[in-house]
Amino acid sequence: MEIVVQKYGGSSLATVEKIKEVANKVIKKKEEGYHVVVIVSAMGKTTDELISLAKGITDHPVPREMDMLLTTGEQISIALLSMALNAKGYSAVSFTGSQLNIQTTSIHQKARIKDIETTKLIEALEENKIVVVAGFQGVTKDNEYTTLGRGGSDTSAVALAAKLGGRCEIYTDVDGIYTMDPRKLKRARKIEKINYEEMMEMASLGAGVMHYRAVELGHKYKIPIYVASTFSEERGTMITNGGDTSMEEILITGMASSLDDIQVTLLNIPSSTSSLYRLFGELAEEEVNVDMISQMLTEDNKMNVSFTIPKTDLHVAEEIVEKWREEDSAIQWEVNTDIAKISVVGLGMRSHSGVAGKVFELMAKNNIEIKMVTTSEIKITWVVDQKDELRAVEVIGSGFGLEMAE
Amino acid sequence: MEIVVQKYGGSSLATVEKIKEVANKVIKKKEEGYHVVVIVSAMGKTTDELISLAKGITDHPVPREMDMLLTTGEQISIALLSMALNAKGYSAVSFTGSQLNIQTTSIHQKARIKDIETTKLIEALEENKIVVVAGFQGVTKDNEYTTLGRGGSDTSAVALAAKLGGRCEIYTDVDGIYTMDPRKLKRARKIEKINYEEMMEMASLGAGVMHYRAVELGHKYKIPIYVASTFSEERGTMITNGGDTSMEEILITGMASSLDDIQVTLLNIPSSTSSLYRLFGELAEEEVNVDMISQMLTEDNKMNVSFTIPKTDLHVAEEIVEKWREEDSAIQWEVNTDIAKISVVGLGMRSHSGVAGKVFELMAKNNIEIKMVTTSEIKITWVVDQKDELRAVEVIGSGFGLEMAE
Repeated sequence: MEIVVQKYGGSSLATVEKIKEVANKVIKKKEEGYHVVVIVSAMGKTTDELISLAKGITDHPVPREMDMLLTTGEQISIALLSMALNAKGYSAVSFTGSQLNIQTTSIHQKARIKDIETTKLIEALEENKIVVVAGFQGVTKDNEYTTLGRGGSDTSAVALAAKLGGRCEIYTDVDGIYTMDPRKLKRARKIEKINYEEMMEMASLGAGVMHYRAVELGHKYKIPIYVASTFSEERGTMITNGGDTSMEEILITGMASSLDDIQVTLLNIPSSTSSLYRLFGELAEEEVNVDMISQMLTEDNKMNVSFTIPKTDLHVAEEIVEKWREEDSAIQWEVNTDIAKISVVGLGMRSHSGVAGKVFELMAKNNIEIKMVTTSEIKITWVVDQKDELRAVEVIGSGFGLEMAE
Repeated sequence: MEIVVQKYGGSSLATVEKIKEVANKVIKKKEEGYHVVVIVSAMGKTTDELISLAKGITDHPVPREMDMLLTTGEQISIALLSMALNAKGYSAVSFTGSQLNIQTTSIHQKARIKDIETTKLIEALEENKIVVVAGFQGVTKDNEYTTLGRGGSDTSAVALAAKLGGRCEIYTDVDGIYTMDPRKLKRARKIEKINYEEMMEMASLGAGVMHYRAVELGHKYKIPIYVASTFSEERGTMITNGGDTSMEEILITGMASSLDDIQVTLLNIPSSTSSLYRLFGELAEEEVNVDMISQMLTEDNKMNVSFTIPKTDLHVAEEIVEKWREEDSAIQWEVNTDIAKISVVGLGMRSHSGVAGKVFELMAKNNIEIKMVTTSEIKITWVVDQKDELRAVEVIGSGFGLEMAE
């Protein structure tokens, strides 16, 4: 019998009523003739509540004890869902990460899955049971409880599907992956199929529901991942090895835009690779997350360097840059906080070189100034003034067919 | 270094503030030069909240999943207390029942401890750590999570003290064991020392803070158990092998009274041991918890039988008795719901036969009718009208010196 691993997020399990609905959805899959393994997150706001308890104790809780605390959230969910399934007449059994021996590295709060022992799980499936597993958690080889960090439950689901050779279904509060956040592009289109690599780019832009790590794992083990809404029957998005196979050629699969970054520009720094090396080395050391970089030589053997960083890292970056200025008073710098960072992603770019050109053309035609641009194999990212964000999104959305058909 | 096992109940851990206070109390013991192992219950109303979540799912949750759910309560407590200790600069580490391998029988919701692996725990103590352990929970040999039922955390604490050869301290919201519930006998006296056997009798009467199982275990392994208030420095009660060693002879150590029972009387049943055997057999089969029994022969080879049962079992008992009446219409029966069951407990009764006589005398002098009486080696229990309860308690309290000195 084929194995399906379903994952339900916290908002799908926020109340006992929702848990009972999820049970019905699980049962439906079981009745279709599959072995069903369900991965669950903590109920609704449980994790937040636990974190706030910890903050009440101390501002800097020990990571080990934080994991001890947080793993209870998913344990509550598995117990309740398993109760609900049993109450509806289906034999179900729940397991914690520790009971299944979901082996992870030993870095608390951001552990990575190394292996999963499936004997117990497969035994239960063979007894015709539905298996409910706590997501987000694992154990070290010494049976210390660990958590996987952001996107952890998705990662648990994909890892388990990989280990069991099953399909993976991620159920959440949105009904699939969209070409663009519908709050920013009203007529954004739902994507039927998206390639792992595209999805990874989208995820790393903070877009697209799924966390990067989970998609990466799916890619590595070639596990098809289906993303859909828990409480609707609408068709969702399939993340696979292929891409969208519609007749028309798709250049751009999706788009994302963010207001969370700022642009820092340094003027008149000595033109040498070692300066750049030193600058970005110092930023990296302070864990400032530099994204886009653009550099331009000027006269007098000097250069200007622009880069984007998260808004939250501004203070640290300032300190570093000020130190440089103390050493060399010729250096000037400015910060632009009113920027929007827009990216388009698409496998089609590999075979079609015209995408960047078309982006420039669309921006120019609409009088939107591009302040910075970087390109990678399947992604183009550019910076515009914040006031131009939604207009740029719209222009690209219609220019590259990211909207629903009329 | 001597090991002390401290147990803190849920009301002592109801808020993060209280948890921090408990941490201070633990640290104080550590600073006195002891190895400290702390057993905790779930915070305040957590267990009730979890139970109500389960009830929201189904009226009859699977016991296995109920244990999966409930064990999270203590896990939250151990994490938070351990965080608090670490935040105060003391190295502490928490363990669940599963991590410590607290082996139990496999009956969910009322498992019994079989053994505890202490290697991990002793290692931590040798690293000078404070060890925080989840009470009330254990695991079967297949690592299925179990809970110990009522009084479970006390039992965990005493079992761990026995295994480690340490002392046991139970901290709770009352400051010791009293001769009588102070709500019923205002001037009830705190007992400094009480014998295990007396304490077991008190506990089985629902009095005296501690649960029967925990005291029984203390008795078996001769573990001194100290019961005191978490948030006061007042001296509590020591449960040991000896008894109260004050100069004056103590006949009665404590008293308990309950309004939770009813008295059922059957008249004119055939006088034979087999009738009694059948009656109480049928009651036992339906798990009706019969306590006191008294029987009296009448003329015509008939007899009358009176017994007490918990109020909650009335309905089941009625069904059984009605069946008898259908078979033999001579049988009549009556139920008295307005009774109080009063017990006195004391090792002194073993060597002094006058206690029952003195009870009868005190009741008679004060015109309190005794409706039923049973005696055992160290306990006398009798039934009075509910309206006479507090007067009887007062008469016994002053007659046997259960009150504070003036």
